[in-house]
Amino acid sequence: MKVPLPVRQEEFNKLGTRYMSDDLPQEFRLPQGYRAAGVYTGVKRNSSRLDLSLIVSDQPAVAAGVYTQNVVCGAPVELDRQRTPSDSIRAVVINSGVANACTGEQGVRDALEMAQRTADICGYGQEEVLVLSTGVIGELLPMDKINPGIAAAAAELASSDVSLINAARGMMTTDTTHKVRGRAIQLGAVTPGSGQQGDGRVLITGIAKGAAMIGPNMATMLGVIMTDAAVSAADAQAGLKDAVDESFNCISVDGHTSTSDSVLLLANGAAGGPVLSGSDLAKFQATLVEVCEDLAQSIPADGEGATHLITVEVHGCENRKDAVTIAKTIADSPLVKTAVAGADPNWGRIVSAAGYAGIAFDPTKVSLLVNGMLLYEHGAPVDFNAAAVSKSIKADRDTGIVLLLDEGTASARFWTTDLTAEYVRLNAEYHT
Amino acid sequence: MKVPLPVRQEEFNKLGTRYMSDDLPQEFRLPQGYRAAGVYTGVKRNSSRLDLSLIVSDQPAVAAGVYTQNVVCGAPVELDRQRTPSDSIRAVVINSGVANACTGEQGVRDALEMAQRTADICGYGQEEVLVLSTGVIGELLPMDKINPGIAAAAAELASSDVSLINAARGMMTTDTTHKVRGRAIQLGAVTPGSGQQGDGRVLITGIAKGAAMIGPNMATMLGVIMTDAAVSAADAQAGLKDAVDESFNCISVDGHTSTSDSVLLLANGAAGGPVLSGSDLAKFQATLVEVCEDLAQSIPADGEGATHLITVEVHGCENRKDAVTIAKTIADSPLVKTAVAGADPNWGRIVSAAGYAGIAFDPTKVSLLVNGMLLYEHGAPVDFNAAAVSKSIKADRDTGIVLLLDEGTASARFWTTDLTAEYVRLNAEYHT
Repeated sequence: MKVPLPVRQEEFNKLGTRYMSDDLPQEFRLPQGYRAAGVYTGVKRNSSRLDLSLIVSDQPAVAAGVYTQNVVCGAPVELDRQRTPSDSIRAVVINSGVANACTGEQGVRDALEMAQRTADICGYGQEEVLVLSTGVIGELLPMDKINPGIAAAAAELASSDVSLINAARGMMTTDTTHKVRGRAIQLGAVTPGSGQQGDGRVLITGIAKGAAMIGPNMATMLGVIMTDAAVSAADAQAGLKDAVDESFNCISVDGHTSTSDSVLLLANGAAGGPVLSGSDLAKFQATLVEVCEDLAQSIPADGEGATHLITVEVHGCENRKDAVTIAKTIADSPLVKTAVAGADPNWGRIVSAAGYAGIAFDPTKVSLLVNGMLLYEHGAPVDFNAAAVSKSIKADRDTGIVLLLDEGTASARFWTTDLTAEYVRLNAEYHT
Repeated sequence: MKVPLPVRQEEFNKLGTRYMSDDLPQEFRLPQGYRAAGVYTGVKRNSSRLDLSLIVSDQPAVAAGVYTQNVVCGAPVELDRQRTPSDSIRAVVINSGVANACTGEQGVRDALEMAQRTADICGYGQEEVLVLSTGVIGELLPMDKINPGIAAAAAELASSDVSLINAARGMMTTDTTHKVRGRAIQLGAVTPGSGQQGDGRVLITGIAKGAAMIGPNMATMLGVIMTDAAVSAADAQAGLKDAVDESFNCISVDGHTSTSDSVLLLANGAAGGPVLSGSDLAKFQATLVEVCEDLAQSIPADGEGATHLITVEVHGCENRKDAVTIAKTIADSPLVKTAVAGADPNWGRIVSAAGYAGIAFDPTKVSLLVNGMLLYEHGAPVDFNAAAVSKSIKADRDTGIVLLLDEGTASARFWTTDLTAEYVRLNAEYHT
């Protein structure tokens, strides 16, 4: 096999995205007690890219998981679904390039082998390892590359910024950039300097991949969120589920739910302090939602061929489910997405998309703003400055659509991209 | 106002589409007892196009209607919804260019005025008139053009092939061709030559418009189906509902349900013979479904920027609703649609789209054919000839996707278009 080519410190210092520099914000760093690595195993053709990542916790971690709802799902999804929630996970091994989905019983054996190999090398039980795979579906994993790759990754494990970024890079497929986001929070239950173990400061840091489904049969979205807070398995699972509902479940590039979508949360308690409860748990949960939102937004922001990140807000619904349904219907409308690509302040497409979401509402009470400008009020278009709205869409990569109903007080946000000819080109090319 | 410019016989003879010639198939002709017209009123900018159509029945006709499920709907939809089913409709007046949707109380008054004007000129009761409008939403109807247009159309009314085609042309928006389809059937209850009134031969002829939503705020689909059979209002309504469920509700270009979608059925009994029942009613119903399917397919076949008409068949579902849901999910996937545009035999996108339709099925029993070639069998891809499948997609405007499940015996068909860069260009241009 080829020698893995992870990012070295000197390369890392040259990487130029806004979230990568040698002074990476502290909240984007690995929480305490974790080590990470990303290596090149030869599964991807381009050896300048990484394709296998490993994350380990130096002490057993609580782990939660939320997975694709696709009836057709990859072998790793099946494996992890059985293993989470857990209070004893030590490692997550991730490969990109081949998704190990639609691969039958051999796929199940291969996913187990990835766990076993990781466990053997690192000295864990194989049931303490979670597995993620993303890439082409319908192909068997090239275990002759994966197995030595796991050994190489284990040898690279470190707690540095570089290793975190390598882990994020090792899970990329058509992403144009790796995705790392995080928050540091100060918990109140432990007084800093009080002599209790830990100072109440914990990190929540996540990595994700995703930029649509593309290629012959590529899968979409993976996320791994790590914290050094101590959280019970039940709270971790419930909290992750809620956070995903408000973030990863509120994005779409093309509305296509992949066979491999997975988000994991690891909580190893290495920051010290008691298992979170009460206001600390609430604070943790609110921050977990923010980190998931940041990661989730980074996916359509990196959407294939996209020129705009569209945020659809719907307010005034009877309940949150209605609000999400309406926001998603607007976000998935090719007519809305092409209108934004064309800087067309097309209120009719937006309002009529809301109308076919399958949710009852009074159309005479609907109002609509685009980029803060009122286009439609109480069921009728207003005399707005179309040129100004169009100009504001052209001027900014972010487009904000706000729909106001009068059925209740529930709201939702949904993020998507515009739809460009470049998206079609990327997805229509015949790959064999 | 400008003089209306309907098609004259000499122009008609020059029109070159496959469904238009001076020897129009008899089953595409106006059934007995109807007259039709299409004129130019000046609502559309291009005076070579028609923009107002009128259809009348010389005797009161049974009328049924099926309308958009969009919460936001046009004033004519509200009007017709109140008036159907009916056993006493004399006329349908249709304008294109302005949809009279999102127009508040003035819109309601304008729709009523269209009915009243038609009734006054033709000598009917205004409640005997149905109204359809399609085009830009959010704009008031220019009644100063519509009203004289109705008078002009009434003066043009005729039972000729030309008048039928003019009526079909008068409802077009972004359609590249008018859409007329029909069937002649021989009913059994009346023996030809038996001396009973009528010879048992009836026509079912329909006109439709639709090619996606486009423009600033254009509406999608209208259909008017006329028959000279005698059908009860209850049977007409139930039969039209069923036929629409299998046809117009099984097509999409961009998944965007418009504010104005309407399909009307008129049955005036002018062919003579008793009100249909028993086997004659069953035969009529089966034929009505065929006419609706023909018309429905003609819409994605004329889809904006489309290079393929895709037929998605799903077999082996527990019930028809499941089959329709899965077929629709596949048909609406931009990844499936771009794959067909790119002649990419991408089984992964199709199978995974089925998997996220929200319907439970055993993924290990799924098989898939594209253009009759097996790509995926019992949950795993087969070793198929990708180049041959790709070639077959490129060679034919029609692409067939057949998904086989093993949950039951129900099936569904759904028709859509591919998604091309040209579609995006057409829909992203900024119109003011």
